[in-house]
Amino acid sequence: MGTLYTISAPSGAGKTSLVAALLKEMNGIQVSVSHTTRASRPGEVDGVNYHFVSTEQFQQMLAQSAFLEHAQVFDNFYGTSQQWVESTLSKGIDVILEIDWQGAEQVRKLMPDTVSIFILPPSRQALRERLTQRGQDDETIIARRMADAVAEMTHFVEGDYLVINDDFNTALNELKQIIACQRLQLSRQQIRHQSLLAELLQ
Amino acid sequence: MGTLYTISAPSGAGKTSLVAALLKEMNGIQVSVSHTTRASRPGEVDGVNYHFVSTEQFQQMLAQSAFLEHAQVFDNFYGTSQQWVESTLSKGIDVILEIDWQGAEQVRKLMPDTVSIFILPPSRQALRERLTQRGQDDETIIARRMADAVAEMTHFVEGDYLVINDDFNTALNELKQIIACQRLQLSRQQIRHQSLLAELLQ
Repeated sequence: MGTLYTISAPSGAGKTSLVAALLKEMNGIQVSVSHTTRASRPGEVDGVNYHFVSTEQFQQMLAQSAFLEHAQVFDNFYGTSQQWVESTLSKGIDVILEIDWQGAEQVRKLMPDTVSIFILPPSRQALRERLTQRGQDDETIIARRMADAVAEMTHFVEGDYLVINDDFNTALNELKQIIACQRLQLSRQQIRHQSLLAELLQ
Repeated sequence: MGTLYTISAPSGAGKTSLVAALLKEMNGIQVSVSHTTRASRPGEVDGVNYHFVSTEQFQQMLAQSAFLEHAQVFDNFYGTSQQWVESTLSKGIDVILEIDWQGAEQVRKLMPDTVSIFILPPSRQALRERLTQRGQDDETIIARRMADAVAEMTHFVEGDYLVINDDFNTALNELKQIIACQRLQLSRQQIRHQSLLAELLQ
């Protein structure tokens, strides 16, 4: 069995870039592709960025308890397919869910062995700069983004692990260490080294 | 607070060399020096290899519950000073105890947060070769050592983590990952990044 990870962070903490780099450098780990009812944006690919579904399809999946977690953001729905997550884990592949604290909380309720990681920026100033670089926004919008980020950050205490994204490569390496370490846990190693263990103890 | 590790292995699994290399390459981690009543051997240094004490001193410490774990091997006593372990951990330094499964069990009872690591050889044949290289021993002695090793190995299931020492550097790297990972746990990070967290959430 693989390990299920939730990775949460406020906007501007660099979560998406870190997860992309992690997937490039590590084997045996995949990120879950969410289902969403929102329209695809230019450049987005169905099945890669999201599974784009109609509101009717989403509601039908919801009625079948097909989602490990789901959320509504304005008029759009987002959800994580439980079936895909479980079948991937059963192949011994680790799965990452990039979700906010509310999603992570839903997941932990259904799958208590989930390992939750929180990523935080190295300072308030760095966060503000990262949130501002996204465009020439006025102060009201930036203040709103900062408030949203702080609201998300207060939930870092619910995580199992905390990574500070000051230096990108250090943070990336820390994520790798967390994942490598779970793979060395007794239960995982007993499966991986089943025949060796039988031979040693014969 | 640092993390307390027990590292256990059968003779011939390479535990001592791995721990020595680990201490050379990682900061913030120390190995506990046991108290013993056995006579020092040529080259052994008091306070480095062991704390050499008289049987009377050992019994006195035992009466004061000064040991986190202790054992008798033939006529000699061995023990781990609880006071040293706790004061080292309280400085935020990780502590390694190189002990057998019985010692590890005693330690876990007193300090349930202990992380226990088991190191195993990559095959029965490799173990036999490593146990034989120690001298020109006859078959009876080797068979006895193999039986002792197997008896110790059966307790690998009591560990939190399992490391197979096939390639030395791979095994060393895995030990480092386990230790690095514990340092990324929320409780450790909350102490390390106390002022950052206060600033971010102000």
